[in-house]
Amino acid sequence: MTDTQARKPTGTVWDVETDVIVAGAGCAGLAAALGAIERGAETLILERTGGWGGASAQSGGLLYLGGGTTLQQACGVNDSPEAMAAFLRAATGPGPNIEKIDIYCDRSVDHFDWLVSCGVPFKAELYDEPGWEPSGDQGLMYCGGENAYPFNTLSEPAPRGHVPQMTGKRTGVKGGGWMLVHHLAKMAGLRGSSINYDSSIERLVVDDSGIVTGVIARRYGTEQAIRARRGVVLATGGFVFNDDMLSEHAPHLLGRLKLGTDGDDGRSIRLAQGLGAAVARMSSAEAAISVDPRLLVRGLLVDGTGQRFINEDSYPGRIGQKAMTEHDGEIFLLLDEAGYDEDAARSFGLGLSWVGADAAELEAEMELPKGVLQATVDVFNSHAEAFGTDPAFHKDPKWVRPLSGPIGAIDLRLGEMTFATFTLGGLDTTIDGEVRHVDGHLIEGLYAAGRTTSGIPATGYVSGTSLGDATFFGRRAGAAAGLR
Amino acid sequence: MTDTQARKPTGTVWDVETDVIVAGAGCAGLAAALGAIERGAETLILERTGGWGGASAQSGGLLYLGGGTTLQQACGVNDSPEAMAAFLRAATGPGPNIEKIDIYCDRSVDHFDWLVSCGVPFKAELYDEPGWEPSGDQGLMYCGGENAYPFNTLSEPAPRGHVPQMTGKRTGVKGGGWMLVHHLAKMAGLRGSSINYDSSIERLVVDDSGIVTGVIARRYGTEQAIRARRGVVLATGGFVFNDDMLSEHAPHLLGRLKLGTDGDDGRSIRLAQGLGAAVARMSSAEAAISVDPRLLVRGLLVDGTGQRFINEDSYPGRIGQKAMTEHDGEIFLLLDEAGYDEDAARSFGLGLSWVGADAAELEAEMELPKGVLQATVDVFNSHAEAFGTDPAFHKDPKWVRPLSGPIGAIDLRLGEMTFATFTLGGLDTTIDGEVRHVDGHLIEGLYAAGRTTSGIPATGYVSGTSLGDATFFGRRAGAAAGLR
Repeated sequence: MTDTQARKPTGTVWDVETDVIVAGAGCAGLAAALGAIERGAETLILERTGGWGGASAQSGGLLYLGGGTTLQQACGVNDSPEAMAAFLRAATGPGPNIEKIDIYCDRSVDHFDWLVSCGVPFKAELYDEPGWEPSGDQGLMYCGGENAYPFNTLSEPAPRGHVPQMTGKRTGVKGGGWMLVHHLAKMAGLRGSSINYDSSIERLVVDDSGIVTGVIARRYGTEQAIRARRGVVLATGGFVFNDDMLSEHAPHLLGRLKLGTDGDDGRSIRLAQGLGAAVARMSSAEAAISVDPRLLVRGLLVDGTGQRFINEDSYPGRIGQKAMTEHDGEIFLLLDEAGYDEDAARSFGLGLSWVGADAAELEAEMELPKGVLQATVDVFNSHAEAFGTDPAFHKDPKWVRPLSGPIGAIDLRLGEMTFATFTLGGLDTTIDGEVRHVDGHLIEGLYAAGRTTSGIPATGYVSGTSLGDATFFGRRAGAAAGLR
Repeated sequence: MTDTQARKPTGTVWDVETDVIVAGAGCAGLAAALGAIERGAETLILERTGGWGGASAQSGGLLYLGGGTTLQQACGVNDSPEAMAAFLRAATGPGPNIEKIDIYCDRSVDHFDWLVSCGVPFKAELYDEPGWEPSGDQGLMYCGGENAYPFNTLSEPAPRGHVPQMTGKRTGVKGGGWMLVHHLAKMAGLRGSSINYDSSIERLVVDDSGIVTGVIARRYGTEQAIRARRGVVLATGGFVFNDDMLSEHAPHLLGRLKLGTDGDDGRSIRLAQGLGAAVARMSSAEAAISVDPRLLVRGLLVDGTGQRFINEDSYPGRIGQKAMTEHDGEIFLLLDEAGYDEDAARSFGLGLSWVGADAAELEAEMELPKGVLQATVDVFNSHAEAFGTDPAFHKDPKWVRPLSGPIGAIDLRLGEMTFATFTLGGLDTTIDGEVRHVDGHLIEGLYAAGRTTSGIPATGYVSGTSLGDATFFGRRAGAAAGLR
């Protein structure tokens, strides 16, 4: 990519024309295509790989939705848009994207219905254990630490993780994310969207007044000039697979496990920046910690100094973010015999690295400075024994009991495998997916969605907010482009 | 600012012509002007306010230099470029700017001599106490935690904070930063640079091939088109005074004390971004903690949970960054009678907020969860008593002694006044100040320096690296523009 902007579009001979071009066939791009089609726009999706799906199809499929969706109602769950917004404002900060959160929560019930209308199946059953994903095909779960401190003090907790049901022969092979994009792709096709595979956007074409009028795409080695009469929607994912961009913006992610596809190279972000587009939160990232949350809640998590730093029943993505960025990824999980579950440990390839007859012996085995880890266990135990509470870090009383007998530690400093990361920063867009120029005006004809943008998961992350944001604002971006 | 790019420069009628335009008359801009003049270029500085100085003139004037400067030699200090580079690579990460660090350290001795040749005075005397600035007019000090863990294990510590001497009637009124820019401004004038005050850049002018050919400036309400035959150097500071940009990139800085001038509104960064310029580390910031380092080293610093998180003899800017971004700014300094120094406390308007007969009583007074702060003090004391060491956080043994008798706590949760901040992110530039486009090419004719760029203080900060980087790479940017 040597030029991000074709400056003489008056000379451009268009090979293809359509109303709306959507770049990327993950869930954001597919939702954008559907949004454009709903506005009567002829729509062409350009997908770099040989098939739809992107990073969305690899994911667990959680969509963070609420406010009283039909699924929540069917599971007997009470929720309100206000409670949902209060949680997201707190959990995605500092600096939550208030405008996006508010409209997202306000229209979340409708968005769920729209996903169902696109054919995405959800089973009306609540999974009520701590976990990254449901154990089976349950459709609803807690997935952001709503029911843990400090969020349980801010608004009424409700499970808001909506998980597409894995059905048919695919069960056990494909996950909820695959089901989500499968149905969106199928519906986009049924409703008349075209899709060009093996087609990557190389440049944005702008006219003399700076309006985006199309793209130069490369297909099977040949450049194609494609005109978009109404607009171009960029939805090609984030940039976790671009180490140069990580070096510039988020060096703490270098060398970590990357979640996504190698298409997550930030191309769309850079193409838009070439037109003066503003970016936001480029250092933000999710850092999912690769350990079973059922183990976390039963243990004490300490950092390299032997001190605790968070309530272990918090959202494990939040634990991962804190551990990676604030504690250099140096963390250990302490468990006694009653808390250790070999199956849960093995499911993530983990085991005990050290065992001691008590905390003093354990800290010696771990070669930690004498006394710190002992004090951590003693203080926790003293409150657990006397009151069954955890006043220092506010773990829910249901998980609080003293560690007793021999104590073991799981080494979670597993280097690049412990933290599974993807980027949260990207283009600065309006609630209609319009891309903002650094001087504040909107770049006419240009829209973006999904992790190409900075969205609901602004600084903090919550499971399901990426797919939720991508489909909700993707559809809106497509609709806005389709109406232009 | 409604348009960052004049797209029809062929129609531009130039009001003024020169070789090199420098925007901003802080130390980066003044060094750039000198660099351009040294290459024989006619140079015009555009300064938005009514006088030179900018944020540089408000600062303490520390320049982080070393490798064996004549000042270090005169103070009997051994240093090497390698030791300096090893320290800066560790202290400014994660993701240090290796290329800039290496040339900066390699040529630091020359840069010091150049500053002296510009008339900047330095007194050959070492100040050997912990502090933000020397107590008097000493010219050299430790200023980055070189002599504290972990940096003292990486390379030979050396004092590298070079402080311009306050001389004449200005002593006690103006600081070292004022002396630095005073002499640079005087020398720039003597060597023939022109300067237009009350002159702000509104737009960059580019020709049809994307080369920057000049600027549109506003002076006393009138627009002026100024041609730069060779180049434009942007050096108008960072963006800590632009809350919209903080919201986008560094929301944790909102509501904190800002260091700089209201000219630090990121204008130059946005102007260059309008041309597709790449930015880096936009979330990075210094957060100087407003407390006397002589108090810090004598106490125990705990966060809102009652636990320690850093060696108290570390560089206080590092303590501030950690406290603000990783501990929500919730910190307290514990001191016993032997450690408390009322004068040092008062100099920052501080005093003891709570006192207890022992740690147990103190934590009750502070309404902290029972046992955590006690354990923190007990564990520290047990090692201090037995071995005079601090194995958990590695405070230098010279500051390690058990806290005894009544213990008091200074409340450092002083809200917006505790952390004095400025931004470290900005334009992505080469070691010659050339501005990189997001697609990797250099934007011809455009240069930048100082906190308009992402420089040596990449993620971590060290006192003196901002002025050091600004003058060193400012001069190089001016020279590169002057030679074009």
